Order: sequence, then structure tokens, then C-alpha cells
Amino acid sequence: MSLAKVFGVHAAQSALDYSPKKISQAWVDQKRQDERVLSLVKGLKKRNISIEKADRKKLDNLAKGGNHQGIVLEVEMPAVRSESDLKSVVTAGEQVPFWLILDHVQDPHNLGACLRTADAAGVQGIIVTKDQAVGITPAVCKVASGAAETVPVYQVTNLSRTIAWLKEQGIWIAGAAGEAEQDIYAMDVNMPLALVMGAEEKGMRRLTREQCDFLVKIPMQGSVDSLNVSVATGVLIYEIYRQRLGA
Amino acid sequence: MSLAKVFGVHAAQSALDYSPKKISQAWVDQKRQDERVLSLVKGLKKRNISIEKADRKKLDNLAKGGNHQGIVLEVEMPAVRSESDLKSVVTAGEQVPFWLILDHVQDPHNLGACLRTADAAGVQGIIVTKDQAVGITPAVCKVASGAAETVPVYQVTNLSRTIAWLKEQGIWIAGAAGEAEQDIYAMDVNMPLALVMGAEEKGMRRLTREQCDFLVKIPMQGSVDSLNVSVATGVLIYEIYRQRLGA
Repeated sequence: MSLAKVFGVHAAQSALDYSPKKISQAWVDQKRQDERVLSLVKGLKKRNISIEKADRKKLDNLAKGGNHQGIVLEVEMPAVRSESDLKSVVTAGEQVPFWLILDHVQDPHNLGACLRTADAAGVQGIIVTKDQAVGITPAVCKVASGAAETVPVYQVTNLSRTIAWLKEQGIWIAGAAGEAEQDIYAMDVNMPLALVMGAEEKGMRRLTREQCDFLVKIPMQGSVDSLNVSVATGVLIYEIYRQRLGA
Repeated sequence: MSLAKVFGVHAAQSALDYSPKKISQAWVDQKRQDERVLSLVKGLKKRNISIEKADRKKLDNLAKGGNHQGIVLEVEMPAVRSESDLKSVVTAGEQVPFWLILDHVQDPHNLGACLRTADAAGVQGIIVTKDQAVGITPAVCKVASGAAETVPVYQVTNLSRTIAWLKEQGIWIAGAAGEAEQDIYAMDVNMPLALVMGAEEKGMRRLTREQCDFLVKIPMQGSVDSLNVSVATGVLIYEIYRQRLGA
């Protein structure tokens, strides 16, 4: 766990919905008579959370220039792990590797839903990029329904380098791509594995795709091009899980 | 397709993002200087959509008392089918029945994602309740990425009665429930089938559950209670699909 500054009306509302006990402090611009801020203040007071009046300058500082809309909270959030944390776990090798890599997934609903799936299917952790990806936000934690606390998320600066390193450790890299030749049901995926999922709309980046040992697809007989990212992740992760269970 | 009135800032934005060509008319309260409404007006003008000035009373009428926030659009939307449409398709019996029933699912993201999955896996249609459930909204269409146009959605007033009728037609009713004794991978689900998914948080209603021929669960080894509804639907629908493919 680590203390994070959460700001803006939506994020503050998610933090309040998700786990009010984890909010240690609030700063509010009392000059803003925004309905949504007032409703948040009411919710914070009801839960006896300390509220400090702050001017715009102070809030700008706390939010480091982010769009705070007059409210900043200090919230205890699951800590994001580093690349060296990842390396420690992988080299410790306590279980058959089963990792999920999200290449620039940006929607908090998708990351939250993927965390739940990862928790349920025994995925060791989720690897995400530092740039252009959603991190552990209150919205993610809310959707994850507890899984943000149980499934570690590792942020890496250079995904290609991390994938290359994982391969050196004997982990196979499977990339999900609609244009893959083989579908997952025709493949043996019961091996030390990291599954790579691309971003909403765009899919995997070229560099990421080129590093995959093989590509897999989900058979689709209709007219849409792809499933929702978190659904596709669920279908693939569970097929890998099924094969691991020997079911 | 049918013409629907879509109102409020979020719904209007979704309609504009999803398919501006399907918007035939806009009514806007020009007195409202709301930033979001002004940005919508800009977007509508850019696409040459006819905008009529309207006062609050007119908008209240168009939105039938709904919270329009100063904007109402007329949008061509996929038509929702009726119970009798459903009966015609089922009795025509042109394919081995494969239906998805959503019992009070309320999140447009979930319905939209389920539509994509249904399209991809050959589900004939989705059956939803008229009450306490999300219908075909612009947000649903946007998430569905085209599947709202290909997968029919049937709204029924009395889900228990509809399920009883489906059973009379020789369709097996499988309900998804965390407390089911058998997991889906231990079962033969290659049969004329309707899969019932319960609502977010609450699961299936008691009456719905009692009508199921059998319950299925997804094996889960972690600490969270359930997967996201659209992810769970994807995992179950695809296991049924896999068995149908004989993979």
C-alpha cells in the first residue's frame, strides 16, 4: 500500500464509493460551489474524514498541475510494483509462470475487470507500461472489487526489453491478435506463459507483436472485428487455465 | 431500426461518437450556456445536423420528463424486439438454439460487451427484461461496436414466463451461479441452450434461478467472489461455443 493523491470529481467519488476508510485527508476549494463537489464534501463529512480548506494554488500543487476540479484526496492505494520487483518474483520461480501483459490498455473498466480475472485464474501479476496506460486509480480499484489488492501490477518503462528478458527466463510470449493463423482451441498453451493483450481499438503495437513467440486468436463467426479487451482477456486466460487444470 | 429520442449530455455525446449519420435532428435549449452542451452543438454543426432552438418546456415534452440537460436528439437506433418476435424465431428453429438471457443487467458497458461476444460466438439473440435493465442506448451501441445492429435484443415483461416457454420448446436453461456444484469445464453443454446471467452485484433473482435446469460456475481460485458480468458471460459463452465446435 502507498499513499496517493487522488483528484477531480470522478476519481474522488470512486475513492469514496470504493473504500472511504482508505481516505486519510481531503482538501477542498470551498469557493467552488459545484454541486458535485458539495455532494462529495457531504459524503466525506458523513464518514468523519478530515477536510482542509485550500485555495486553488494549494490544490494545483497537491495535484501536481492535474485537473483537480476543486478537490484532492489522500488515499491509501495498492502500490504499483517496479521492473526489479517483477524480476525478483520471476527469478524466484515459485510457480509455473502465468503472466498477463497489457500493451497500452487505457480504460479503467478494462484494467479493473482484468484484475478480477487474473485473481480468479491464478495469474501471478499484470505487467503494464508506464506511458499511455491506465495505472491503479480509484476507478480501477472499484471495478476490480478487491483484486487490485491481491494481484500485483508491475509498471515497466520499456515493454520490449521486459518481454525479451521474460523470454530469456524460459517464458513463452503469446500475443492476442485477430489475424493470428491458429485459434486458441487448436493450441497447446499449457506452458510457462505470458499472454499479451493489445490496446482498445489499436491492438498490440508492432514492436510488441514482433517479440511474441506466437500469436493466438479467438474464433469469431460474426461481423464485429474484436471482443471487448477485458472479455477477450477473460476468454483467453480461462482457456489457458482450463488446459492447466487438465479439464 | 427505429427512431428514438436520446437526451442528456452523456447520451448525446455517445450518439455523436457512435454514429453521427444516424442523428436526424437536434433540439437545444440555447439559453443553457453549459460548456458540454456548447461543445455538442459544435459537433452537431460540424456534421451538418439540423439544430432547432427549443425552450425547456418543449425539451421536457420531447424527453418525456427525462433529465435532458438542455439537449435532445432524434437518433436511428436498432429496434428492440418483442416477446412475440422471440417466439417466431424460436419456433422457426433454423439453428440449434443458443440464447443469452440477462436478468436485470444494468450497466451499458456490460450489455455492449455482451452484444459483441454474442455476435462473435453465434448467439442468436439476447433476452432482457423490460424493467430494471439497460435497453439499447447510444452508450450500449458505442460499446457494442456494431453488434447492436447484428444481434437482436428481445425485451420481455415476465422473464419467468419466457423461460418456462423456452423450456417447453426443448431448450435447456443453464444459470450462471458462483455456488453451483459443477464447473462448466466438467459439463457437457453442447445442447439447445439458453445461458442466464444475473445482475452485477446481486446475481440471478431467486425466481429466475429456480427455473434453471442446471447451474454452472466458472472455477475461481483467488479471493474475489465473481468476475465482471461481461467477462463471465464471455468465458461461459465461449466454453459452450468451444464444445459446439468440437474443439
